[in-house]
Amino acid sequence: MKEKLIVIKVGGKVVEEEDSLTQLLNDFAAIQGNKILIHGGGRSATKIASLLGIESEMVNGRRITDSETLKVVTMVYGGLVNKNIVAGLQARGVNALGLTGADMDIIRSIKRPVKEVDYGFVGDVERVNASVLGDLIKKGIVPVLAPLTHDGCGHMLNTNADTIAGETAKALAGIFDVTLVYCFEKRGVLLDETDDNSVIRQLTRAEFDAYVTQGVIQGGMIPKLENSFSAINAGVSQVVITLSSAINSNDGTHVIK
Amino acid sequence: MKEKLIVIKVGGKVVEEEDSLTQLLNDFAAIQGNKILIHGGGRSATKIASLLGIESEMVNGRRITDSETLKVVTMVYGGLVNKNIVAGLQARGVNALGLTGADMDIIRSIKRPVKEVDYGFVGDVERVNASVLGDLIKKGIVPVLAPLTHDGCGHMLNTNADTIAGETAKALAGIFDVTLVYCFEKRGVLLDETDDNSVIRQLTRAEFDAYVTQGVIQGGMIPKLENSFSAINAGVSQVVITLSSAINSNDGTHVIK
Repeated sequence: MKEKLIVIKVGGKVVEEEDSLTQLLNDFAAIQGNKILIHGGGRSATKIASLLGIESEMVNGRRITDSETLKVVTMVYGGLVNKNIVAGLQARGVNALGLTGADMDIIRSIKRPVKEVDYGFVGDVERVNASVLGDLIKKGIVPVLAPLTHDGCGHMLNTNADTIAGETAKALAGIFDVTLVYCFEKRGVLLDETDDNSVIRQLTRAEFDAYVTQGVIQGGMIPKLENSFSAINAGVSQVVITLSSAINSNDGTHVIK
Repeated sequence: MKEKLIVIKVGGKVVEEEDSLTQLLNDFAAIQGNKILIHGGGRSATKIASLLGIESEMVNGRRITDSETLKVVTMVYGGLVNKNIVAGLQARGVNALGLTGADMDIIRSIKRPVKEVDYGFVGDVERVNASVLGDLIKKGIVPVLAPLTHDGCGHMLNTNADTIAGETAKALAGIFDVTLVYCFEKRGVLLDETDDNSVIRQLTRAEFDAYVTQGVIQGGMIPKLENSFSAINAGVSQVVITLSSAINSNDGTHVIK
């Protein structure tokens, strides 16, 4: 039987504010067994870019990454945010290792082709080196992944943290029994957006399709759940959508096969 | 017999300018066998700090690292400079892994005690985890160390790259036959500062003492050579002081027992 592995993705907001970061570090440290953390960091990047006089241009919620912006995200995601998390986890007895996709060639991407929009130095994940990550994890090392990959030709690429989490979970599903946890600002997928207690506890593909048809699930939640079912179909055992403060509870929406 | 290992320290200037970085990456990639790269990055940190409105205060050539400056060096050394080197080496077939001391707890430091000067978040190296580094190296991984360590209590610490190189070389001398290469802006230790061809090819402790007495070796070269002899006395096989462009030649000053 495969060992269990929990892959947790947290957004920028959680890791950029001292109080929520402290809580996350405590909660993450308390998780027993194999684990990986994937973090965002967009708000800090926007703030520092602005202080450096670089304007952050967003299209469809995605950052346009010109060469100056690439420097900023490489600094902020790969340096500031990542190393603060690593140092904080080490202080809590977690043997964390901060990584970008370039380190040990763990995630290689292709620079997104220019269609209607030129996203600049943004990477679409090509492959995750599951064997290298798996060996680290089996030694008790806890990878902390920044949302950065590389193209194998010497360029770092800005890469969506949700995508990195999904692709990493899928790749590791061949080695581990993987639970993927997407943390976000709600308790889970809600039946009624205005009622935080209306969390859908369990969601299959058929139920999801029905809720979409009924208009219960809509907007940005649809691509998030499409990603979740894609992970499930690729061998991930379950996907949980929940608050970052709930990673040790059984709360949230459990997306299952 | 121990396997050979070459530990190379390069200053900030070399890795911050595109042409010299490209040459360094080519030269470093051409080195056969086990190797580690330790880099500086001070000039970029000063420039970015200044753009962010943070003044860089230097005392005796060392940066005073307040909490804002710590953020800048963590970004610049651990993110921008480190990851660009890692991506550049990966593109050249070198399986690089960028690390700070916090990653896998490889270098732990003590925050420098306040005496006449409060250096702020500056670390004095306490111990290097040679076993973890040695295991990586024996697997063909090439560590790229940023000049940052941690205190084990959740804080990153700004740490002199020469010191990291020296302490890492000493710690690994128990596992490998180590050559430590300090790259700097001259061909080596010169008999005559105005003559680049007056490189002292080999230097023992007795010869060093004599040159200091005669006033031939003076100034900043004295602590650099004291560090070198300290490494030699701790089991490092030889220390070479040379140009970064000469790491594949037999040029430079060879400090020996």
